[in-house]
Amino acid sequence: MTGLVIPLNEAAAAPEAANEQPAGNIAQLVALVRDDMERVNREILSRARSNVDLIPEIAGHLIDSGGKRLRPMLTLAAAQMCGYAGDHHITLATSVEFMHTATLLHDDVVDDSDMRRGRKSARMVWGNEASVLVGDFLLGQAFRMMVSTGSLEALEVLSDAASVIAEGEVLQLSTANNLETTEDEYLEVIRSKTAALFAAAAQVGPIIAGQDKSVVSAFRCYGSNLGLAFQLIDDALDYGGSSAKLGKNTGDDFREGKVTLPVVLAYRRGSDDDRAFWKSSLGRAGDEALERATSLLDRYDALADTVARARHYGEMARDALAPLPAGEHKQALLEAIAFCTARAH
Amino acid sequence: MTGLVIPLNEAAAAPEAANEQPAGNIAQLVALVRDDMERVNREILSRARSNVDLIPEIAGHLIDSGGKRLRPMLTLAAAQMCGYAGDHHITLATSVEFMHTATLLHDDVVDDSDMRRGRKSARMVWGNEASVLVGDFLLGQAFRMMVSTGSLEALEVLSDAASVIAEGEVLQLSTANNLETTEDEYLEVIRSKTAALFAAAAQVGPIIAGQDKSVVSAFRCYGSNLGLAFQLIDDALDYGGSSAKLGKNTGDDFREGKVTLPVVLAYRRGSDDDRAFWKSSLGRAGDEALERATSLLDRYDALADTVARARHYGEMARDALAPLPAGEHKQALLEAIAFCTARAH
Repeated sequence: MTGLVIPLNEAAAAPEAANEQPAGNIAQLVALVRDDMERVNREILSRARSNVDLIPEIAGHLIDSGGKRLRPMLTLAAAQMCGYAGDHHITLATSVEFMHTATLLHDDVVDDSDMRRGRKSARMVWGNEASVLVGDFLLGQAFRMMVSTGSLEALEVLSDAASVIAEGEVLQLSTANNLETTEDEYLEVIRSKTAALFAAAAQVGPIIAGQDKSVVSAFRCYGSNLGLAFQLIDDALDYGGSSAKLGKNTGDDFREGKVTLPVVLAYRRGSDDDRAFWKSSLGRAGDEALERATSLLDRYDALADTVARARHYGEMARDALAPLPAGEHKQALLEAIAFCTARAH
Repeated sequence: MTGLVIPLNEAAAAPEAANEQPAGNIAQLVALVRDDMERVNREILSRARSNVDLIPEIAGHLIDSGGKRLRPMLTLAAAQMCGYAGDHHITLATSVEFMHTATLLHDDVVDDSDMRRGRKSARMVWGNEASVLVGDFLLGQAFRMMVSTGSLEALEVLSDAASVIAEGEVLQLSTANNLETTEDEYLEVIRSKTAALFAAAAQVGPIIAGQDKSVVSAFRCYGSNLGLAFQLIDDALDYGGSSAKLGKNTGDDFREGKVTLPVVLAYRRGSDDDRAFWKSSLGRAGDEALERATSLLDRYDALADTVARARHYGEMARDALAPLPAGEHKQALLEAIAFCTARAH
């Protein structure tokens, strides 16, 4: 991919200009995929239908709860950008969202989460049993949908992602509460549990559009690095953003004992006393411990540097798109990077 | 399929002769697939491998724990019977076993089971979290393997089964403890949660062998009804077999509050007093309640009739095979029916 000439209007727009866009703005991406996304929403409702009432009830709880649907939007935008003319991008985007929803349902059970997107989690309302099984159902439906497109290459990408995601979750489980986790080990976890689905979502559109391997790889690289950036910003946001400030939705990761990058950094940079604090307090409830934790994150620039790391992956995502032709779709995908990394302010 | 002449040697062997075989004997089936099954076992070990130690550990716990591997044996025998000459039947048989293992892991979480096949369940050793996630991993691996065969038709059958199984489990959850469950409603549950995978397992061999639709349907019908018979006998065995007798592994369904066919029958046939007992006692621990339950099952012939129902589905499975050519494979599949229905004695 090196050696390709980047069009001038591209070079002019990137990279600082994008960061000046208002945080939380993915208006261009949303506008481009609006019609397709409406079809995805209809497909979601139709595929979550079942004679077993509990299934549409639980699926609806998650589906209506205001997720951004970033992943299916990536699939749609990438397919459009590659000039795809059929209907399979709708089916694949729906599959991607179902895989994501299934993961959320299982994650809540694994994490004992009480809340999800500001509402009671499904497991709190319907129990762990139903969350596990409805997750399995959505995963099954996701596979049925993929199969119906008849694209073995897309199937390979998405089924690989399903395995890798689960493997990443198990890895996270076995490293849980391990404060000696290195940054590389942590990256491996989020590369599997988050970036793999972003990568698959970005890739399947070009695949069904019959694009060259190099184009498919460019989208894969974009999606994967966008996913890493997205997850790292999420980790920083869990402590209130780039400078730690306690809020009503902060501290979940701390209370659940999750060793995310901010903690990895603060732990390594801290004194013996600080490390003793992390060891005795991570995974405990209580505002006092969380206050001390956030002050340590601040003192050692752990959140600001987590955001800086996220920006690094954002830049990689940007460069992944460089060989692709300029236009409104490319601009929208660049905007998505800015959106993901700007959330932490 | 009607109108085909059943070979004489076939008619002579069936159906009573088969029932005279010693219970627990599927020697012919085992012998026919022995070489292929060794390859499946190697594939199982290789596909459960992961850098994340917990995965082979947990998968190994289940895989080594002496399951009969009836489902993959069906896939292998059916593929052989249809003259299939490639390697994909090994891959698909492994997929089928992984789907089954994933279901077991998730079931144990859903049922809060302490034991599985006479050993501590995975969730008791490694926790619910790991059971959910390793189940997801095995499901992901199952899909990857299917995709690698490149057979969209086999993929369709197996991904449909994955959805239907999960749907059946959710249905069972929402009917749990509901003593008003009808026999038909219960059949719908086990048709989804058990028979669907048996049907898929029996079908994919003929599919990759390029058999006609009518042959594929025959195997599907065989597998589905064999699965129903298998599950009903399992339900009877949970209370000690065709005449209720308490043993060290009996009563799990009772204690977990599962409304299986024996309970459906005894509840409907019982007096008001009996029904009041079931309502107050199903799902409770305690030997006294279980003793009264088994005596009621005996009084109303609920176990014997559950076994009789299982035989009915066994006969349907037998007739499903009627149009297929006689030979050692057909004989082995018939033997499998006898094995499944004779277990309850």
